[in-house]
Amino acid sequence: MSVDSIKVTVWNEYRHERKDPNVAKVYPEGMHKAIATYLGKQLDLDVRTATLDEPEHGLTDDVLAHTDVLIWWGHMAHEEVSDVVVERVYQRILGGMGLIVLHSGHFSKIFKKLMGTTCNLKWREVGEKEKLWVVEPGHPIARGLGPYIEIESTEMYGERFDVPQPDTLVFISWFEGGEIFRSGLCYYRGKGKIFYFRPGHETYPIFYQGEVLKVISNAVRWAAPIDGLKITFGNVKPLERIRK
Amino acid sequence: MSVDSIKVTVWNEYRHERKDPNVAKVYPEGMHKAIATYLGKQLDLDVRTATLDEPEHGLTDDVLAHTDVLIWWGHMAHEEVSDVVVERVYQRILGGMGLIVLHSGHFSKIFKKLMGTTCNLKWREVGEKEKLWVVEPGHPIARGLGPYIEIESTEMYGERFDVPQPDTLVFISWFEGGEIFRSGLCYYRGKGKIFYFRPGHETYPIFYQGEVLKVISNAVRWAAPIDGLKITFGNVKPLERIRK
Amino acid sequence: MSVDSIKVTVWNEYRHERKDPNVAKVYPEGMHKAIATYLGKQLDLDVRTATLDEPEHGLTDDVLAHTDVLIWWGHMAHEEVSDVVVERVYQRILGGMGLIVLHSGHFSKIFKKLMGTTCNLKWREVGEKEKLWVVEPGHPIARGLGPYIEIESTEMYGERFDVPQPDTLVFISWFEGGEIFRSGLCYYRGKGKIFYFRPGHETYPIFYQGEVLKVISNAVRWAAPIDGLKITFGNVKPLERIRK
Amino acid sequence: MSVDSIKVTVWNEYRHERKDPNVAKVYPEGMHKAIATYLGKQLDLDVRTATLDEPEHGLTDDVLAHTDVLIWWGHMAHEEVSDVVVERVYQRILGGMGLIVLHSGHFSKIFKKLMGTTCNLKWREVGEKEKLWVVEPGHPIARGLGPYIEIESTEMYGERFDVPQPDTLVFISWFEGGEIFRSGLCYYRGKGKIFYFRPGHETYPIFYQGEVLKVISNAVRWAAPIDGLKITFGNVKPLERIRK
Repeated sequence: MSVDSIKVTVWNEYRHERKDPNVAKVYPEGMHKAIATYLGKQLDLDVRTATLDEPEHGLTDDVLAHTDVLIWWGHMAHEEVSDVVVERVYQRILGGMGLIVLHSGHFSKIFKKLMGTTCNLKWREVGEKEKLWVVEPGHPIARGLGPYIEIESTEMYGERFDVPQPDTLVFISWFEGGEIFRSGLCYYRGKGKIFYFRPGHETYPIFYQGEVLKVISNAVRWAAPIDGLKITFGNVKPLERIRK
Repeated sequence: MSVDSIKVTVWNEYRHERKDPNVAKVYPEGMHKAIATYLGKQLDLDVRTATLDEPEHGLTDDVLAHTDVLIWWGHMAHEEVSDVVVERVYQRILGGMGLIVLHSGHFSKIFKKLMGTTCNLKWREVGEKEKLWVVEPGHPIARGLGPYIEIESTEMYGERFDVPQPDTLVFISWFEGGEIFRSGLCYYRGKGKIFYFRPGHETYPIFYQGEVLKVISNAVRWAAPIDGLKITFGNVKPLERIRK
Repeated sequence: MSVDSIKVTVWNEYRHERKDPNVAKVYPEGMHKAIATYLGKQLDLDVRTATLDEPEHGLTDDVLAHTDVLIWWGHMAHEEVSDVVVERVYQRILGGMGLIVLHSGHFSKIFKKLMGTTCNLKWREVGEKEKLWVVEPGHPIARGLGPYIEIESTEMYGERFDVPQPDTLVFISWFEGGEIFRSGLCYYRGKGKIFYFRPGHETYPIFYQGEVLKVISNAVRWAAPIDGLKITFGNVKPLERIRK
Repeated sequence: MSVDSIKVTVWNEYRHERKDPNVAKVYPEGMHKAIATYLGKQLDLDVRTATLDEPEHGLTDDVLAHTDVLIWWGHMAHEEVSDVVVERVYQRILGGMGLIVLHSGHFSKIFKKLMGTTCNLKWREVGEKEKLWVVEPGHPIARGLGPYIEIESTEMYGERFDVPQPDTLVFISWFEGGEIFRSGLCYYRGKGKIFYFRPGHETYPIFYQGEVLKVISNAVRWAAPIDGLKITFGNVKPLERIRK
């Protein structure tokens, strides 16, 4: 592993897969493993996983200190994520760590805290078709894609998605049942970069689909921290002479 | 007062003015009164005030239900604002109420919650000169202004201002001591509109300055709610037939 | 008509309606008349029309000097609009006049010049269903609407729409055939404001549909010029003393 | 040179340096050489130069076909750049080539065409001090910088800078004489990325200053094309069945 590799931690709630045989059939080792397996094959990425039921949810100070980009999937247990860990992750993001929030992670504590809004939306689970259209084709997160990604069968998320207008909007989804959704959203927050990506319901094999995984790996590279300036806040002396 | 008038509540912490004779000399009845007096002369505005030490900080359900735009000034007692009231104000903003945050209000609980970032900045209090340059001259908040507003003597706020990139940036400040600051920022959040405006330290007579007051009244009109759609969230039925 | 009314000029190419009996049946007096009739009933608007085959396309210096917001529909004769008139309209927009570009006006000389991109898109004319979803419900252009506008039968426009990311995105369209489209786009340019609105093909009675007309009238009010500052450019003297 | 290296062409008008001995003293081989020398030392960049008085301004189809990022400096001879070459460069940018416009290049034909506005500004040449403050510290163009870049002596550019609000604002300049300026601006246009960077007047040794050069090299990497989708426009068949 190169010294310059991007350190990725794939975090998963990892409950559905252990409780629901239908989900277990699709993701026997959890969605985090499916994602981590793909990312782990990329030479520039150094990948580990963490899950809710590990001590400190697997997100200790040490793990976060060695994480450049955190990927987040949660759904049924958002409220079980401790406020202490949320605050720790939040501080790391404002300090430069990238965050990729997947699908039902829209309702996670960390995403809501960063957005400052309810992050609410419409949804329906009937296994309909989705097309994610690329609307900003020069953006690095669209690298290597065709004009759209088709997902054969998925849960629907519909607008109004109650989030701030993104700094850059990369994907918009079409759903068979009549809705649309802003489904690839880039945000600068603090020194960190955040990407929300809609696909990925637990009962569909979406995290095995090549284009979805490609987007996640593109997003990891986009969200990686830069050797950024140390920002100072607070009381400062004048840089120039004040005339009075 | 017309039935169509915009209902404005000017909220002030109102502590400096009662504790510090130097501040009391400038604002004997409080900064809120200086602002409310100006706004109250405008025929399309219906203005009241509220302060921290009133019951429920003067922001009861009833007051908020009759407030279209809330103006917020706080500084030394941000932590004394009860979380219950903050949550109430927050819900009203996401539901459509406008919010204008003045100066040191950048560190208020409500602004930090809405921004999702620290809202930190650099500052210095030596009474230096500020120029607020208009950078989006077609924006309604710039109505009736010249190319810049000059404030003879003020506290400095400097970048990095740790907030999300605004939906529209209207003013940028120049300071004598060498700093710049994004000092007029528009945000859409939920169904509400938020304007952060930098001027207004308690020891300077800035809330008597015509251009500053004009900006505040322009912002009130910009931030007023629209007869907006009732947004529904949650589980929905398909609008179109799903083929499977 | 009040002295404060917004002066609107509805410009139409007005060729389809005179050449094609199917279009004439829908819009016997032209699409501009359908729009102008609706707007003309609003007390705060002062409405006139202009068409391509009038002298100077009906857009003389005098007409433009008395136009606050210009509405533009063109399709088959974009190239016949004289460069002199385009330049005149362009200068007025940068000077503060609002512009609302409808449907096939995306390929007009004036819109392409203002956007700086090709403004190209995908299209299909099979009379399919469209839903325009509101994604920024606090925006004044969404005033009075429901969660979406449905158009029963229309031409499709699909992404990639080759325009700059808008300052605010208000509507996204869903199409029966599988595409999505950013269909309500706000831009600040110079001192002017521009709104692109997708609906309105000549063979469908879309400019008689109440919600479509409501959006156009909302957009007129949003795009109206402000009493803005006179912007000066060029060589200037220092405002503060330079120390050397 | 690696097969993956980014191909950079540094274009310079190269007139001041040959006509004005004061400029020649600062940049004996032209500003393009100063920039190209710095960039040429970076292992991931493959750098060439081109100037106005070469055939086709040095920007033949072949040169552009082998250019990933074009850097542009012009001032006294904007009008001498042929419209044919401007159109060729324009098409390449919309097709994915990056463009970095330096200083007085704000008035170049190519930048004005891409922005769709006048790109006018205020200016003054008295050798005053400038500070470029980083306002988006997580952006890759800010990599490796401190909180601001100071330029000891330079020409001033002041707002109102008549350009569209950028997709991301990275730098804001402070000037000794009282002005501010949005001086580092990122734009997505077509499939291309554009960065405007203010520093670089011909009579000051600014293109030897490390931080300025670092920003330019950061911007080259940010603006490099991605292996992007081939975008198709025009008439398309439905992807889904239309029910009528």
